[in-house]
Amino acid sequence: MFTNCEHRKNQFMKKINFYAGPAILPQEVLKEAGQSAISFGDMGLSILEISHRSKEFIAVMDEAEALVRELLNVSNDYAVLFLAGGASSQFFFTAMNLLGQNESAGYLDTGSWSSKAIKEAKAFGHVDVVASSKDKNYSYIPKGYQISDQHNYLHITSNNTIFGTEIFHLPETSIPIIADMSSNIFSRPIDVNRFSCIYAGAQKNMGPAGVTLVIIRKDVLGKVDRVIPSMLKYETHIDNQSSYNTPPVFPIYVSLLTMRWIKKLGGLKAMEKRNIEKAELLYNEIDRNSLFVGTANKEDRSRMNVCFLLKDSTMEKAFSEDAENAGCVGIEGHRSVGGFRASIYNAMELDGVQILVDVMKKFESKNT
Amino acid sequence: MFTNCEHRKNQFMKKINFYAGPAILPQEVLKEAGQSAISFGDMGLSILEISHRSKEFIAVMDEAEALVRELLNVSNDYAVLFLAGGASSQFFFTAMNLLGQNESAGYLDTGSWSSKAIKEAKAFGHVDVVASSKDKNYSYIPKGYQISDQHNYLHITSNNTIFGTEIFHLPETSIPIIADMSSNIFSRPIDVNRFSCIYAGAQKNMGPAGVTLVIIRKDVLGKVDRVIPSMLKYETHIDNQSSYNTPPVFPIYVSLLTMRWIKKLGGLKAMEKRNIEKAELLYNEIDRNSLFVGTANKEDRSRMNVCFLLKDSTMEKAFSEDAENAGCVGIEGHRSVGGFRASIYNAMELDGVQILVDVMKKFESKNT
Repeated sequence: MFTNCEHRKNQFMKKINFYAGPAILPQEVLKEAGQSAISFGDMGLSILEISHRSKEFIAVMDEAEALVRELLNVSNDYAVLFLAGGASSQFFFTAMNLLGQNESAGYLDTGSWSSKAIKEAKAFGHVDVVASSKDKNYSYIPKGYQISDQHNYLHITSNNTIFGTEIFHLPETSIPIIADMSSNIFSRPIDVNRFSCIYAGAQKNMGPAGVTLVIIRKDVLGKVDRVIPSMLKYETHIDNQSSYNTPPVFPIYVSLLTMRWIKKLGGLKAMEKRNIEKAELLYNEIDRNSLFVGTANKEDRSRMNVCFLLKDSTMEKAFSEDAENAGCVGIEGHRSVGGFRASIYNAMELDGVQILVDVMKKFESKNT
Repeated sequence: MFTNCEHRKNQFMKKINFYAGPAILPQEVLKEAGQSAISFGDMGLSILEISHRSKEFIAVMDEAEALVRELLNVSNDYAVLFLAGGASSQFFFTAMNLLGQNESAGYLDTGSWSSKAIKEAKAFGHVDVVASSKDKNYSYIPKGYQISDQHNYLHITSNNTIFGTEIFHLPETSIPIIADMSSNIFSRPIDVNRFSCIYAGAQKNMGPAGVTLVIIRKDVLGKVDRVIPSMLKYETHIDNQSSYNTPPVFPIYVSLLTMRWIKKLGGLKAMEKRNIEKAELLYNEIDRNSLFVGTANKEDRSRMNVCFLLKDSTMEKAFSEDAENAGCVGIEGHRSVGGFRASIYNAMELDGVQILVDVMKKFESKNT
């Protein structure tokens, strides 16, 4: 039982947000988002109640697109879209638009999200699973596999939120790559020209839940002959600057604020440096600490989602309590891996990771 | 040119929001939404950065569903869903899930949104347009038409945002009705049992852009045999309480706040009374004022979107300026009707309508 005083302390203690998604956003973004939900700029209205056709919101959309292009260095060969429905909708969207019934595509199976993408694509054409790490509970990224150059595209999941692995080297192939980058978009520079399509649910590094970024090469479109509902055609959204229907106004606005913050901090190179520092701090402790062990193959360890176990699983409850008492929230591992997962996206500060590391160190002292 | 002082006055003047959507929300909802975007409850985190699997957000979802059921009196024969993609996605969603390739459905064509629903449904089965008011630029609701009882369903648009008409009496038919209620949901009591499906983009009476309410009779599902992607099956979302993938957290939360406000003010009967008062005030002025004329057939006039013209269209700019100077925003008519449109959804106060009426009265005095 808390005393009243302890309860108040707990209630207002600074929390360190390790949720896998929706996930931590920069404090200054949250503050400005909250202010704009009450009163946006000098409009005398909330951002929640203005028309998506107002000049003020069109300016938001234009700047959001421009910042995606600037941060990721996206050429005019690509369209930049802000859609609804999450990455889970892009699993079928990509195949429906880009894979003919008699054509084939390669899919790299590196976890639950890859598997779902594979399942949805099968309804639209031939799916060749080029490699899978399911044999070891997705704890590594497959390498050295063959990819037919007859495939329309190769689909990959660039970071596996649940299993804590990340693809640092793209497969060597001449066919265009489609990537689900939901959980590591904007975490480091990438060469967009290697991809025919990149998609990402916003709710990790880009903004709140409710909007999905799609970057798509325009010349890959219009080649399948099936009937596609208007809302499910990329062309519809390209032709209407993501406003064929009412777009998710506020999630797009908060994504804009987050991208402004990324730019202010120095763009993706600065994010990469920051993310490497945080990941090294935490993985080094996992490797040093006698009580813990990481779950992912070392060379494939994600910089975004750090998965680790207590060697003695009976100690889990005690460690969870220590972490919670230190203000750490959201470190429960996904049920398919167990143990713990600390998601340390762009907005996580090094100080936040240090607090978790300190909890781990103290836990070791107490228990050895 | 404004002087500095006038500019400041204009900037901070209370605005009366007549946007057609996204649209006015109650001030207390906006304030609480903004506060929660900074710090939600006693979590020490923003609502924008918490997991959709957290107990706090599950409580939001549960209460939102319970309030939909309570306000609209929805029985357990129906599922209540919060989906992404807007009503524009429901145009194909409904047909894809409920209309077999060799089956037929009736569609009532009362405006642009009906026409889009018709277009999308044609890809999935036979569409019988039972009646249309296109002959008079959708200025009335067709009556007295025949509906085959062989159809799977009859699709209607209950309120036509663009043309300012509303259906007050449901067509007499024994077949189930599907209704796009985007622009008049929660504006008055309805008998849900007359419908097999009701859908509504939130961004008028329910909340901000980014979430779509779907109320669907469970026993109409599972009867078509086409392959449907997981994300496009109602069953997927029913089986997962709208959280098969990450739902649009914040739009759902603000919708919950809006529904709490509706309940606090007395529910849908109170909303209906309030909406009738506002609509009568504005339509009475349109009919009384020698300079203005309404565009919709009187008995079909929408209580949500009031469309009117200046008899002398050369006076439009002057009237727009007067309205703007009085703080009225968003009264430009849609390009397919021209003139003016004042959207007076639930959250609009009678005082706000009175300000517009006063502008009309003064404009008449000045110009006659």
